[in-house]
Amino acid sequence: MSVKIKTKEQVTELINQYDYFLFDCDGVLWLGDHLLPHVPETLDLLKQAGKTVIFVTNNSTKSRDDYLHKFEKLGIKGITKDEVFGSSYASAVYIDKILKLPKNKKIWVLGEEGIEKELNELGYVTIGANDPLLIEDGVKFNPDHPYLVELDDEVGCVLCGLTLNLNYLKLSITMQYLLKDNKSIPFIATNIDSTFPSKGKLLIGAGSIIDTVSYASGRKPDAICGKPNQSMMNSIKADNPGLLNNPKRGLMIGDRLNTDMKFGRDGGLDTLLVLTGIETEDMVLSLDKDVSPTYYMNKLGDLYEL
Amino acid sequence: MSVKIKTKEQVTELINQYDYFLFDCDGVLWLGDHLLPHVPETLDLLKQAGKTVIFVTNNSTKSRDDYLHKFEKLGIKGITKDEVFGSSYASAVYIDKILKLPKNKKIWVLGEEGIEKELNELGYVTIGANDPLLIEDGVKFNPDHPYLVELDDEVGCVLCGLTLNLNYLKLSITMQYLLKDNKSIPFIATNIDSTFPSKGKLLIGAGSIIDTVSYASGRKPDAICGKPNQSMMNSIKADNPGLLNNPKRGLMIGDRLNTDMKFGRDGGLDTLLVLTGIETEDMVLSLDKDVSPTYYMNKLGDLYEL
Repeated sequence: MSVKIKTKEQVTELINQYDYFLFDCDGVLWLGDHLLPHVPETLDLLKQAGKTVIFVTNNSTKSRDDYLHKFEKLGIKGITKDEVFGSSYASAVYIDKILKLPKNKKIWVLGEEGIEKELNELGYVTIGANDPLLIEDGVKFNPDHPYLVELDDEVGCVLCGLTLNLNYLKLSITMQYLLKDNKSIPFIATNIDSTFPSKGKLLIGAGSIIDTVSYASGRKPDAICGKPNQSMMNSIKADNPGLLNNPKRGLMIGDRLNTDMKFGRDGGLDTLLVLTGIETEDMVLSLDKDVSPTYYMNKLGDLYEL
Repeated sequence: MSVKIKTKEQVTELINQYDYFLFDCDGVLWLGDHLLPHVPETLDLLKQAGKTVIFVTNNSTKSRDDYLHKFEKLGIKGITKDEVFGSSYASAVYIDKILKLPKNKKIWVLGEEGIEKELNELGYVTIGANDPLLIEDGVKFNPDHPYLVELDDEVGCVLCGLTLNLNYLKLSITMQYLLKDNKSIPFIATNIDSTFPSKGKLLIGAGSIIDTVSYASGRKPDAICGKPNQSMMNSIKADNPGLLNNPKRGLMIGDRLNTDMKFGRDGGLDTLLVLTGIETEDMVLSLDKDVSPTYYMNKLGDLYEL
């Protein structure tokens, strides 16, 4: 049964018990472009107590730098790049440190600028993604497009994520690389969320786009670098040696049971659910013990307010 | 065990035994834009013998009129519209005669002109599809697009097929209609082929695109109107009352085991595989009895040549 955090004593004990605090962002720190109450104060409190904070998010369209701008814009000061871990960066780290793809291999990207930036920072050459030649005909498909007719033999990895500027050409070229060399080129997904929340609506998520090329090529991704998949946890560890050697000193804080809480639990961390996202108290109390979060609370800012 | 048709006596017996000859097109009559040998003569032979011929194809981008042009262009004369049954027309017939959607309901189409034409001919108003407002921003996604922000309450059906002029907006609006009214709007797929053969390559097929909105919305299509699904057979029967009352008088001729042969077999018809497509004689001879075609032959034109 989950313990509800509602007294000052519980907060003190909670903070003492953990060294590493992993946070989901949307639904925990903010809702869209609206900062939740007392979030900056709570983060300051943890940092002043000498805790390590890491922000773990599945949105692959943004790079870490883009996230720093968002923190700044919403009034959360003093966050540093090494505290931010998006699925685009997690994928880049996975390809570099776990897959160990040589730097002379190119990466075909079905996705947005955030993915390219992170791969480029780690020294990889990317093709695909936002190349203007892929969208020069807009949505009109040209079966004789040179990128479709002649594949690049230096491509050693295919990385797919959320792609808003999608067309049939990008999907079809991605499929060719997935079929190439007897389907041997590694196929990495940033995350497989089926939906993408935007302005109060559920739109097409990364996982739904990846499913297209997956179904078409008859391949499943070799690794998924977003929550709740542990490839993301492995990337965090690979990027921060020693950080989670003792996962019991870590707490994963999030608003979703099937991504954030599962991600923490599968990684051996304790978990804290906040009720500012999609889950309700009744839902938490109805869960079986083995899928219940360790703790839950109304909102993250309660850590400061209490 | 399949019987190989290789003598004049077998041909005579075959023609006498059946009243209805259903044909797949690509791989049987033609390969891409290349007519196979003695196809027009074979079709004439059957028609002169008073047989009913029906062409059954999964490509939903073309309407029956588009197919008539293709027959004409390749030199196959005298084919009439009621002899052609594409998955776009099959879907339209399904919606009209089986789903019995009232004509005052609109149909949201994720697909190409072929689908729109067939629905319009049966008296339905279509939205989506090739509406220029859906591609006015090309591949750039506008989350405030009026079609996304304000759904049309008159939409009573969603029909999805192969869409070459695809963008994120079309996928996301389709998803909204699939989620609308507690996911109650019927969801019809023209066909679910995962790949689309084009110029010697395998590109993204209708099924892969439909899988995107299916995964995103958490819904499976309520009906699939392409081979091998029997909704297509039911549409053929609904459109031609009495035609296949005795399926044993019908023969399905095709080049693919998992679509054409399965389609015929599941519909109770006998089946004839031609080896001008993707299957080989060794493959046919290695099959278990329950999935073997009734007959096979090197090419359709052998019916004439023999």
